[in-house]
Amino acid sequence: MRLDELASRFGLALSGNAEVEIVGLATLAAADAHQVSFLANPSYLPELEKTRAGAVIIGSEHAGRSPVPTLVSDNPYADWARVAQHFHPSPGGKPGIHPSAVVSESALLDGSVSVGAQAVVGEGCQIGKRVIVGPGCVVEDGVEIGDDSRLVARAFIGRDCQLGKRVIIHPGAVIGADGFGLAMDKGNWLKVPQMGRVRIGDDCEIGANTTIDRGAIDDTVLENDVRLDNQVQIAHNVHIGAHSALAGCVGVAGSTRIGRYCMIAGASGIGGHIDIADGVIITAMSTVLHSIDQPGQYGSGIPARPQRQWQRTLVRLGQLDQLTRQLKQLLGKSSKQD
Amino acid sequence: MRLDELASRFGLALSGNAEVEIVGLATLAAADAHQVSFLANPSYLPELEKTRAGAVIIGSEHAGRSPVPTLVSDNPYADWARVAQHFHPSPGGKPGIHPSAVVSESALLDGSVSVGAQAVVGEGCQIGKRVIVGPGCVVEDGVEIGDDSRLVARAFIGRDCQLGKRVIIHPGAVIGADGFGLAMDKGNWLKVPQMGRVRIGDDCEIGANTTIDRGAIDDTVLENDVRLDNQVQIAHNVHIGAHSALAGCVGVAGSTRIGRYCMIAGASGIGGHIDIADGVIITAMSTVLHSIDQPGQYGSGIPARPQRQWQRTLVRLGQLDQLTRQLKQLLGKSSKQD
Amino acid sequence: MRLDELASRFGLALSGNAEVEIVGLATLAAADAHQVSFLANPSYLPELEKTRAGAVIIGSEHAGRSPVPTLVSDNPYADWARVAQHFHPSPGGKPGIHPSAVVSESALLDGSVSVGAQAVVGEGCQIGKRVIVGPGCVVEDGVEIGDDSRLVARAFIGRDCQLGKRVIIHPGAVIGADGFGLAMDKGNWLKVPQMGRVRIGDDCEIGANTTIDRGAIDDTVLENDVRLDNQVQIAHNVHIGAHSALAGCVGVAGSTRIGRYCMIAGASGIGGHIDIADGVIITAMSTVLHSIDQPGQYGSGIPARPQRQWQRTLVRLGQLDQLTRQLKQLLGKSSKQD
Repeated sequence: MRLDELASRFGLALSGNAEVEIVGLATLAAADAHQVSFLANPSYLPELEKTRAGAVIIGSEHAGRSPVPTLVSDNPYADWARVAQHFHPSPGGKPGIHPSAVVSESALLDGSVSVGAQAVVGEGCQIGKRVIVGPGCVVEDGVEIGDDSRLVARAFIGRDCQLGKRVIIHPGAVIGADGFGLAMDKGNWLKVPQMGRVRIGDDCEIGANTTIDRGAIDDTVLENDVRLDNQVQIAHNVHIGAHSALAGCVGVAGSTRIGRYCMIAGASGIGGHIDIADGVIITAMSTVLHSIDQPGQYGSGIPARPQRQWQRTLVRLGQLDQLTRQLKQLLGKSSKQD
Repeated sequence: MRLDELASRFGLALSGNAEVEIVGLATLAAADAHQVSFLANPSYLPELEKTRAGAVIIGSEHAGRSPVPTLVSDNPYADWARVAQHFHPSPGGKPGIHPSAVVSESALLDGSVSVGAQAVVGEGCQIGKRVIVGPGCVVEDGVEIGDDSRLVARAFIGRDCQLGKRVIIHPGAVIGADGFGLAMDKGNWLKVPQMGRVRIGDDCEIGANTTIDRGAIDDTVLENDVRLDNQVQIAHNVHIGAHSALAGCVGVAGSTRIGRYCMIAGASGIGGHIDIADGVIITAMSTVLHSIDQPGQYGSGIPARPQRQWQRTLVRLGQLDQLTRQLKQLLGKSSKQD
Repeated sequence: MRLDELASRFGLALSGNAEVEIVGLATLAAADAHQVSFLANPSYLPELEKTRAGAVIIGSEHAGRSPVPTLVSDNPYADWARVAQHFHPSPGGKPGIHPSAVVSESALLDGSVSVGAQAVVGEGCQIGKRVIVGPGCVVEDGVEIGDDSRLVARAFIGRDCQLGKRVIIHPGAVIGADGFGLAMDKGNWLKVPQMGRVRIGDDCEIGANTTIDRGAIDDTVLENDVRLDNQVQIAHNVHIGAHSALAGCVGVAGSTRIGRYCMIAGASGIGGHIDIADGVIITAMSTVLHSIDQPGQYGSGIPARPQRQWQRTLVRLGQLDQLTRQLKQLLGKSSKQD
């Protein structure tokens, strides 16, 4: 595609040689004269100045520093995503049911649906148009999946769960296993049946080996456009608001509500039965045990230090209560002296 | 079922209209006149007072506040579990081997066993009565599974591992993969064969995508009634005492012994080669690096704060050693002055 | 095998009865007169002194304390690994494709390759000699796997990814799912195509339910002899140097480079876009947010304490900034007084 075609298709302002032929994409460092690249993070400006790309998608504030043609954008990363989707479209499925798949006769599948090798689709499932159920997936009875959703491979969807449209479920994800419901009864645990479902809205993406438990009584809910990275754990009856994103290894305990447009950084843990307001950002490896009612950044992660220094800090941390008492005594004495 | 029948079947003291017809269960907020609900956590008392449920399972101390018939219980959550199990029995399997499953001829399966679609059962396995091997499970050679156990779907059980009776293994769990055994040898890692098994007692429940490694030489052991939530990691040669429960994302390093009736809250990490006594409770996101020989609560998780405030605390934490020295000097000076 | 044969085959200096017949291996505590054991960790010396093993692999500094024949070694744990590999060789696969497997016609498989039950191998894959693709694995199109590698079971390898020779992938591992690439665009997330691959060098081992994301533009790379334990999460475009080992539940965020011979202890989190030098050791449950340019130990994990004591420490931690200010005032006053 010629650069001017690309610019006009994606609504970008072109500056420089319009006739460059673009055949693909690459990083600023690796791109050749027929590849387009992008600059979204200013820390890559040194690479911009040396790039040999055919063109660069870039904000107007940095465009002047590009040695190659520019496609000026208000949101270079989003426009990069669109251009990349054009050159690397999401892998489609071949419509039809692979002969090795096991699809219940009572499941309702549009002719455009693709069911991969070794997949299993249970009774009474309703699978929307162009849905891909990838190889090795297990979809239990009564599941509903909206149009254009894709279970990449080896995903599990438990009975009666519901996925919206354009949902992507990555390999190994487990949607709708039982929540961790136990009652202690005369010294033994008694299993509490988990009767709710998982309901996932449109445009959600669920990472590899992520787990979302079905609700205990009511449902576990992800609103539209919720994005979960890999190895996230969502307990029963959690409710996540639209457009929130949870990074890898985050865990959310039961019955917690997370608002809209929240961002939870990697490996943070969110306690149970709390409410997180809209627009809350949790920094990496933090522990959230209390409700948060105001947007903004919160955290409790501690950056690593040289171990020797950290060991000394730990010793002092153990003395901190005593230290504080001593200081207060001194302060009392000192104020008397004044 | 009429409410008086339900009360007598589960040994609960009924107060109020005995003739209510009960057809199902719901939360206090959602229940209608033919559904039973429960109150176990007093924070739901405001919902109790507004409930329209057909009846409520409740402790005697709160029964007076119920606007609807009550089923008075010494342990409302346990009785709720029993009633819920009645209305929502665990999904049974159809006895027989699905035509797409691959079951070794040398495996011993009772006629009551259900093997789901695309499952694999290896040579010499011994599978007890009414066991369900769900769709997509892989059971390697020599595995023994006790009566009434259920592998929900897509679980992996490694060679020669043993599961007791009434064990539940949720989707994606991996039981009996090799432990992380490596010897450094002239600059390269050498794999140390993992020759032990995993032995899981009766009534254990293993969460989705949880991993339990086989022992290096001896076995990794879970005693009876151990409950692991999702994404728990149990390393080789760990031993977990009966009735202990580990919440989501907990990791336990190799050769550690955890006692009976322990409760480990979410995302905590337990170091290797240590002993945890019976009755120990670890709070959320804590790090346990030393043996604990007394029951009680232990922790080291830090609740998140507004990031700005936390940043200041981190700066001060870095100065804590110096601060302590300065305070001690002052204290010395002050005591000389006295 | 007679003990003297065993000694000569593994190049170990035998001391004691050469004619003992060795049939297997066990721990110091459990070994009988026909089993060999080892001592690598001096904390097991009390067990050495009571052992009834047929022989013990041991360093020269402890050999004198053995009550049984010794096989003296410079590196007892590595020699134990070699002897154990002899008695417990890695389970081989039966060459050939299981009738239930689905292997694309365009995949290139040597006759020595074993493809297990219910496995799927995509188009254009190139599978080396003696490779084992275990039961339930899904290998997408275009994957290359080097000689003698083994996918144990239920692993996923995404399109175009490359594995070296002698690589082991444990059950549930997901190699080459999409990275977490999202651009915010007018209030909605836009998926950024993940066009890179995962390239894994020779002699790597990947734990159960571990996830390694494909690169966004360039590849995610593991050099030779990298060892990942279970439930490790490696984000897109991470690069891990040769011989590094990451323990269970570690997470590494995107575009981070980890050097050679690094060791990351369990459940630590490594932030994105940072560089970790060769030979860095991170202690358990630490958070690494900044680049580290010197080898050595680093950490930020806090060992758990009795909860009451820890609660007091947390209160004081919240007052630490104020405390520091007060101390500084006192110090100022005190120095004026001097």
